[in-house]
Amino acid sequence: MSAFSTVLQVRFGHVDPAGIAYFPRIYDYLHDVFEELWEEHVGQRYYHLLLERRIGFPLVHSEVDFHSPLRFGDRPVVSVTCVRLGRTSIGLRYRFTLGDQPVLEARMTTVCTDLESMTPIPIPDDFRARFELIQEPEAAAEPPSTP
Amino acid sequence: MSAFSTVLQVRFGHVDPAGIAYFPRIYDYLHDVFEELWEEHVGQRYYHLLLERRIGFPLVHSEVDFHSPLRFGDRPVVSVTCVRLGRTSIGLRYRFTLGDQPVLEARMTTVCTDLESMTPIPIPDDFRARFELIQEPEAAAEPPSTP
Amino acid sequence: MSAFSTVLQVRFGHVDPAGIAYFPRIYDYLHDVFEELWEEHVGQRYYHLLLERRIGFPLVHSEVDFHSPLRFGDRPVVSVTCVRLGRTSIGLRYRFTLGDQPVLEARMTTVCTDLESMTPIPIPDDFRARFELIQEPEAAAEPPSTP
Amino acid sequence: MSAFSTVLQVRFGHVDPAGIAYFPRIYDYLHDVFEELWEEHVGQRYYHLLLERRIGFPLVHSEVDFHSPLRFGDRPVVSVTCVRLGRTSIGLRYRFTLGDQPVLEARMTTVCTDLESMTPIPIPDDFRARFELIQEPEAAAEPPSTP
Repeated sequence: MSAFSTVLQVRFGHVDPAGIAYFPRIYDYLHDVFEELWEEHVGQRYYHLLLERRIGFPLVHSEVDFHSPLRFGDRPVVSVTCVRLGRTSIGLRYRFTLGDQPVLEARMTTVCTDLESMTPIPIPDDFRARFELIQEPEAAAEPPSTP
Repeated sequence: MSAFSTVLQVRFGHVDPAGIAYFPRIYDYLHDVFEELWEEHVGQRYYHLLLERRIGFPLVHSEVDFHSPLRFGDRPVVSVTCVRLGRTSIGLRYRFTLGDQPVLEARMTTVCTDLESMTPIPIPDDFRARFELIQEPEAAAEPPSTP
Repeated sequence: MSAFSTVLQVRFGHVDPAGIAYFPRIYDYLHDVFEELWEEHVGQRYYHLLLERRIGFPLVHSEVDFHSPLRFGDRPVVSVTCVRLGRTSIGLRYRFTLGDQPVLEARMTTVCTDLESMTPIPIPDDFRARFELIQEPEAAAEPPSTP
Repeated sequence: MSAFSTVLQVRFGHVDPAGIAYFPRIYDYLHDVFEELWEEHVGQRYYHLLLERRIGFPLVHSEVDFHSPLRFGDRPVVSVTCVRLGRTSIGLRYRFTLGDQPVLEARMTTVCTDLESMTPIPIPDDFRARFELIQEPEAAAEPPSTP
């Protein structure tokens, strides 16, 4: 298994008066990384996906553990792996680290959705193959028939 | 002439590490006040305007003078007047104050636009009448034939 | 048990090209409601808490279920209850509804923290009494000795 | 004269229901480019400047002309030049283009400020030399003695 990794930058406008990244900014980061994952790993610009193929991946569940704060100027490394690859849903784990220090971990479940009918659809095979490449071993063992 | 007035609140997530409202937040405030102006003064919810009448007022020019900073917890009063009411364009002045102290002044010019064709259209009369009520005297003297 | 309730407004700048509230905005809403809870229910402006008492409540865990989307112009009601009241930590549940329809549910755990030493401290009694008023029955049964 | 140039990306969370960058996001872009200018052209990370040298450049005036909209997925090139280099103030011009098409132009005036006393101070010589490199010819002709 490999992971998709990228580096973020905590900018001036992201931090609160205590100099710590305001927690809602974390979710902007998560969406930015999700878009980068599509573009650089899956090989599909997320906006083409939405506007041309009319497929989206709305979030149905989010769970985040905050271990230590991000501060102004920090450049956390974010590694993304796939912890669940169902027929229509994808579970992604995002680990933020600063050097060896864990900063936070997010688990985000999205559902492959036909944007015209707003109903779940099976994940297209070309995308599935790309998510399998970053799948964690335990996730791979899970049967793919569940939603 | 009267003005449309409202009160904002500088929240935790709006301020930078110096405890001062991060300047891009000012423009979020300006749009929030613009939406309130539509809803409470013009009598048209802005999203109905966009989605049902398919009319929008995109910004073509913005000019802001920053006099003193806004800080966490401040509740500036914002007064809006109309400084220009052309055939298709509206110039609004937003004055932010804290007590007697001027905080900032913004002058924003928007153009009444048909969202289907994306071309300027004359400001509908029912809206024009509402903007006239907050028009500054010097603005009223301007001939309304210009764009 | 009662709940603290407030009403939000989904504004133009909060929605994505599909007309649906961009999910990171949900977390801005959660912080806004948290600030309102402090000010209107607990009776302490959150910024006074931070700046004068030097106490903060950083988030350590967040879990959100998204049931149905929020759209431009929606005015969801948000009800906040306390699902856990430990010695130093507070678990809050935020339920967003539109009429009878559940929109989302968030469970957020924050830890009462001395901002000078950045270490957990017991929740002051005056605050605890206010959170007890919105405590859910099952939460009340939980022994308060845990962190 | 040269210009400092960088490329932005209009992301999903930046656009409104019409698929157009919500105008307050433009000011986030402007601050992001300003931070990049410091880091990559001036050779000083902006947060070090603020936190260690205790010097900031708060905005005193902003003027933006919007020529054509930015849309989801656009990657505008932003070129920054210096249009005014006073003793304590810097005027920067930001031009956003898509191919040959002008998108917007912003002129932003900031004042070099001692963050302890919150008073204007002369721009340090090492910074001035870097801003001179991106100075427009007409700006260079202006006497540097003004504020």
